[in-house]
Amino acid sequence: MSQATTTFNLKDYLRQRAQEVDAALEGFLPADPNSLGPIVEAMRYSVFPGGKRFRPVLALASCEAMGCPHQRAMAIACAFELIHCFSLVHDDLPCMDNDDERRGRPTNHKVYGEDVGLLAGDGLSIWAFQVAMQSPDDLSASVLRQLISELALASGHPGMVGGQVIDLAAQHAGTIDGPQLKKIHAAKTGALIRGAVRCGAIVGGANAEQLARLTLYGERIGLVFQITDDILDHLEDPEAVSYPALFGLDESRAMASQAVEEALLALQPFGAAAEPLSALATYLLTRTT
Amino acid sequence: MSQATTTFNLKDYLRQRAQEVDAALEGFLPADPNSLGPIVEAMRYSVFPGGKRFRPVLALASCEAMGCPHQRAMAIACAFELIHCFSLVHDDLPCMDNDDERRGRPTNHKVYGEDVGLLAGDGLSIWAFQVAMQSPDDLSASVLRQLISELALASGHPGMVGGQVIDLAAQHAGTIDGPQLKKIHAAKTGALIRGAVRCGAIVGGANAEQLARLTLYGERIGLVFQITDDILDHLEDPEAVSYPALFGLDESRAMASQAVEEALLALQPFGAAAEPLSALATYLLTRTT
Repeated sequence: MSQATTTFNLKDYLRQRAQEVDAALEGFLPADPNSLGPIVEAMRYSVFPGGKRFRPVLALASCEAMGCPHQRAMAIACAFELIHCFSLVHDDLPCMDNDDERRGRPTNHKVYGEDVGLLAGDGLSIWAFQVAMQSPDDLSASVLRQLISELALASGHPGMVGGQVIDLAAQHAGTIDGPQLKKIHAAKTGALIRGAVRCGAIVGGANAEQLARLTLYGERIGLVFQITDDILDHLEDPEAVSYPALFGLDESRAMASQAVEEALLALQPFGAAAEPLSALATYLLTRTT
Repeated sequence: MSQATTTFNLKDYLRQRAQEVDAALEGFLPADPNSLGPIVEAMRYSVFPGGKRFRPVLALASCEAMGCPHQRAMAIACAFELIHCFSLVHDDLPCMDNDDERRGRPTNHKVYGEDVGLLAGDGLSIWAFQVAMQSPDDLSASVLRQLISELALASGHPGMVGGQVIDLAAQHAGTIDGPQLKKIHAAKTGALIRGAVRCGAIVGGANAEQLARLTLYGERIGLVFQITDDILDHLEDPEAVSYPALFGLDESRAMASQAVEEALLALQPFGAAAEPLSALATYLLTRTT
């Protein structure tokens, strides 16, 4: 008896999509051997080799859920990855988290110096918008405006950058309560995940109801992502401000389970096309890395 | 005998346009009294009060040279100003120029701390793209793509950010020659000036020849701007690497004069509509601040 070949294999799916994202990023930010300074090299250092490419894969899967070829969302997907990479470079700087290592390698500024590290982050954030504009030629002016706005709102002061500042302010004040923690995470990490899902849907031609459903999905898995991240970190550092520290482990797990259920419910009308999105949501709940 | 009222008054023109830019920027980045953290306040700190708003005024005047109402270029003009403000905030950081004062006030990071200063710069650079998308509704998808690309190419690693890294590398190496200095300045300050002029022309509906002429104008006045800046600084710091230090004062002045002549020549077919652009070029040659 052979296994049913129609069973969706998330592991293979994620690996294949991450490879496609890597190849596209290589095309969007190629090495520049004639460059006078190390800027392109420094930018590429924090893009390659990549991790799971979670945000771009979400954008691609969201486009797919609309019954649209996922490749159509590749440019905007890579734009979100570049924003993510930029945020890691600046987060690691001495005036922020002052980290010497990331993914087992020296951080950008440890290799290239603080000045070039700062500028490499700046370059990545700006280049995200240039890459977003490599989206398919047949997209309307209105869709292009939406994509740029989503990218800016998710990454700028109304989203990620603003969340980081609220986080810093709360840390300086010394107390963070449950509602504040939710607000910080919704902006700091949730906005980019939500935005990636929304942009995949927009490229895929989502109507208002479809966009609302995929937005809900994006918000819920952003929450799940953060809670499970906090749970994994909690085992190493129980003192850090986190979901398990503020709500307890059991309550945190229950919140994550409920969020996944809501995410799956939002996907129902999309049927089989949303299989990757639903498998991703379920996977997030049980991930161990 | 009264003076001819048709004489173009550059001083009034510059003051009026700068006021219009200030008002538009106020609308694009309003104060947010309900903000949880100081991010919007920190961003606004480095946008208001502004200086001469040189780059946005150029974009508006370039649109005007096309016979198009200057207001149509207001959003993209303000986007260039936000990029300029972002670059000043990051330039002042301790890991860059480590400046405590700018325009007679403490620098952003001296007021808000290095972490918030860094993030305020990030926020300004990202918001530039959101503001660019507030350009008139009737612009085509192709024009929107061009505007975003121009903004990204002028400000990112192919332009300003890349020029800063080449500058750092040259400073570390300890020697800069004439051709290198030109290359550094063309990228570091020239790209943004050139891009602002080009974007005003693009919004104004420039054809290929008109765009090429206004691009040449933008490149030449970018050079004039830098040379006269260097001449002004040279009187205070004759040791710094600069046009007068490398080429001598007389040769630098001759280069600036020739660049203005070329800029004016490029404007000829635009007639009276280009009066602000030509007055600006001539003014740059004789400015004392």
